[in-house]
Amino acid sequence: MAMSTAGQTANARGAAVATVIDILRQRFGERLQTSAALCAQHGHTTTWMKTEAPDAVVFPESTEEVAEIVRICADHLVPVIAFGTGTSLEGHVNAPHGGISVDMSRMDRIIAVHAEDLDVVIEAGVTRKALNDYLRDTGLFFPIDPGADASLGGMASTRASGTNAVRYGTMKDTVLGVTAVMPNGEIVRTARRAKKSAAGYDLTRLMVGAEGTLGIITELTLRLAGIPEAIAGGVCPFPDIESACNAVIMTIQSGIPVARIELLDELTVKACNAYSKLDLNVAPTLFVEFHGSEPGVAEQSERFGEIAAEFGGGPFDWATRAEDRSRLWQARHDAYYASLALRPGAKGFSTDVCVPISRLAECVAETAADIEEHGLLAPIVGHVGDGNFHTVVLVDMENENEVAEAEAYVSRLALRAIAMDGTCTGEHGIGQGKMKYLAAELGTGVDVMKAIKRAIDPDNIMNPGKIFTV
Amino acid sequence: MAMSTAGQTANARGAAVATVIDILRQRFGERLQTSAALCAQHGHTTTWMKTEAPDAVVFPESTEEVAEIVRICADHLVPVIAFGTGTSLEGHVNAPHGGISVDMSRMDRIIAVHAEDLDVVIEAGVTRKALNDYLRDTGLFFPIDPGADASLGGMASTRASGTNAVRYGTMKDTVLGVTAVMPNGEIVRTARRAKKSAAGYDLTRLMVGAEGTLGIITELTLRLAGIPEAIAGGVCPFPDIESACNAVIMTIQSGIPVARIELLDELTVKACNAYSKLDLNVAPTLFVEFHGSEPGVAEQSERFGEIAAEFGGGPFDWATRAEDRSRLWQARHDAYYASLALRPGAKGFSTDVCVPISRLAECVAETAADIEEHGLLAPIVGHVGDGNFHTVVLVDMENENEVAEAEAYVSRLALRAIAMDGTCTGEHGIGQGKMKYLAAELGTGVDVMKAIKRAIDPDNIMNPGKIFTV
Repeated sequence: MAMSTAGQTANARGAAVATVIDILRQRFGERLQTSAALCAQHGHTTTWMKTEAPDAVVFPESTEEVAEIVRICADHLVPVIAFGTGTSLEGHVNAPHGGISVDMSRMDRIIAVHAEDLDVVIEAGVTRKALNDYLRDTGLFFPIDPGADASLGGMASTRASGTNAVRYGTMKDTVLGVTAVMPNGEIVRTARRAKKSAAGYDLTRLMVGAEGTLGIITELTLRLAGIPEAIAGGVCPFPDIESACNAVIMTIQSGIPVARIELLDELTVKACNAYSKLDLNVAPTLFVEFHGSEPGVAEQSERFGEIAAEFGGGPFDWATRAEDRSRLWQARHDAYYASLALRPGAKGFSTDVCVPISRLAECVAETAADIEEHGLLAPIVGHVGDGNFHTVVLVDMENENEVAEAEAYVSRLALRAIAMDGTCTGEHGIGQGKMKYLAAELGTGVDVMKAIKRAIDPDNIMNPGKIFTV
Repeated sequence: MAMSTAGQTANARGAAVATVIDILRQRFGERLQTSAALCAQHGHTTTWMKTEAPDAVVFPESTEEVAEIVRICADHLVPVIAFGTGTSLEGHVNAPHGGISVDMSRMDRIIAVHAEDLDVVIEAGVTRKALNDYLRDTGLFFPIDPGADASLGGMASTRASGTNAVRYGTMKDTVLGVTAVMPNGEIVRTARRAKKSAAGYDLTRLMVGAEGTLGIITELTLRLAGIPEAIAGGVCPFPDIESACNAVIMTIQSGIPVARIELLDELTVKACNAYSKLDLNVAPTLFVEFHGSEPGVAEQSERFGEIAAEFGGGPFDWATRAEDRSRLWQARHDAYYASLALRPGAKGFSTDVCVPISRLAECVAETAADIEEHGLLAPIVGHVGDGNFHTVVLVDMENENEVAEAEAYVSRLALRAIAMDGTCTGEHGIGQGKMKYLAAELGTGVDVMKAIKRAIDPDNIMNPGKIFTV
């Protein structure tokens, strides 16, 4: 077996990295950077996790250049970490074993819009907002919306979803195929552009969610949706968080094709009012949105209103103007930052559990009680239509006690969700932060994942130290 | 490297199989069968491909029993072939290297219906009709409908879809997770019951479509859909096949959420009239169905009618009574047998290309011209809303010329679809019949598939000789 990157001595590793940097500099000139600030920014984690900077950052401009970089790193057993926009939350772009960060931001071309097939082919560095800006005049849009303006390559790699997923699915559902550079430098296109295929193993779905540990996604074919003829939405407060969850459960079970249904707890509403200058009632609140024809959204809204009222919710406050809706959803997307602002200087421990919808109210209620019991400051928000919710524990990282308390809480929450037949991560991925829960969730499945990893990346050069220890 | 099953000498293989049969007989008694007729039936291919019978058939009744069988076979490097109902079309259940057929028909328990989560947990031997019969009173149904009353384990393994896929997706979209016995006898559950997850590699989607080459699926968690409040549908003839395809393209591009939209060419309509006692106009025809609320389906139908008329289609003949609709769809499902009846004694060469919807009319037209030019008898039907269509070439297998002509046609069609950025198989799978097109379609991707296969099944005991030669 070849020596793994993690197994090298520090000296050998240092020499190999120096050699690779030298070769890359000759090949890429100014597109290879080693400044401490840039390297630190490329190990940036958004959260409490500590930055582990790569040794250098390179900016490729084509799939062939990525393949060249990967072959050079493979020859010297130097780790390769793909970097999109750095908005992942579980330490995905950290470089615990050093190595080369491959910054995809210059691969931002829209290669082809096939409006007649409802798909688009793009380079992996295109961000979701850039894509939607580009598509504006086509009547189509890309619906997956994780909040951050992430790159599509990064979103695919973490199997991202977000507020629209309850209606439009996740990256697993919207990626028709990818082009990827494998750890040996080979370029693979995982699928052609047909809407469905039964041709062999589903390599597309294998690369989606692999967190850059099996290869680097360089191009994607994405399925698009038609911009709905009508959009309606608004906010609806509830007397308590359990009633709000029960209204969500009933809405989903009734088959109302809600496009977005988001929960904000009392604390999050307070934080958003302050951060985003809103004047919402301070109460557990659902943000909802309906997509369809004019009569369709009217009917959906009415049915939802009846369900909300059944659980004591209301009054339902309609945002009829597009700019009011945009303001609401921008506030929802900024909820993470609004939460951080509740305690300046604190770091956020993010959580991402997802449970079967029937267990949602129970899971949220137990979690709220847990937060209360342990005196944590941890607002709750969530894509509750999918049974997915987040809490952000605000922690003074200088206070060891607080850090330990937060870690214990994160662990309790992950195991609570798993015990309810759910997952420790609905959409953020495992990265470094959730590694300890994967075996609890999938048991022997982790052995299968490791077998695949060893087969495709025997030298463990692709984003090592993520998902599991090989 | 361990000796592969295909590499054994005939003698060694014979001795190993005899030993395994002996052990299995002691363990399973009458549930291990070796009669020639039963073995031949378990290599049955439905199509022109020749039967390659296994050496024995075993009938497990639990996941643990499947694991036991697999461990015994693994110990002796004897092939294991999972068998559902034998309705696959590409030789999936054949045993080219002999071995043990694992008949899943006794694993037919519905384990749990979670109506509140819109999912169901079943054993892999449950058929789609049995599942829908069971669900009848819940207001829910399982929408994937490949025509044949296949087992759900088999449908997952071939990544099946069918008439409803245009609205409800394929097995890739509806399988939430599986329990599988891996080639080493380990039992793996690929996912928990949360609606979405970002926890590591997508093992669920890896097993879906793996055609039993990576393990045997023993249990599945399936997503269900609500039975629509209203269903409307009917048949609409067109002056020629290209106009019918263009009407389909426009319907899909307009975003009409059609539940089913199926093409039958003139010859298929004639065959169905004879076989299923219908009296349809003999013309290229679309069978369509709309699901939704009463006003919803009325609106969809009206919009479709306008599009059909634009392309010279009509009159649109409504089937308002449920029994008339059932009769139509039964005829559609029997189209394969109706086609065979056009030439008694002939065998069918089935094809399964799928192209981007914008290329559908072109692909169908070129294929019709190809059929005409070569004087083949080959009716065309298809799930055209997904860009997927089938032709069945009726061949006298005694006539070498005819066989060669049919093979050349199948090859031209597969490569035509691939050249249009489509696939040689939309839903039937690769099996034995489409192996020669996989590399043309996915190039270096096939190397990645083989690496995965070798990692998970190093002795190549799981359904060897399917998808690719390891």
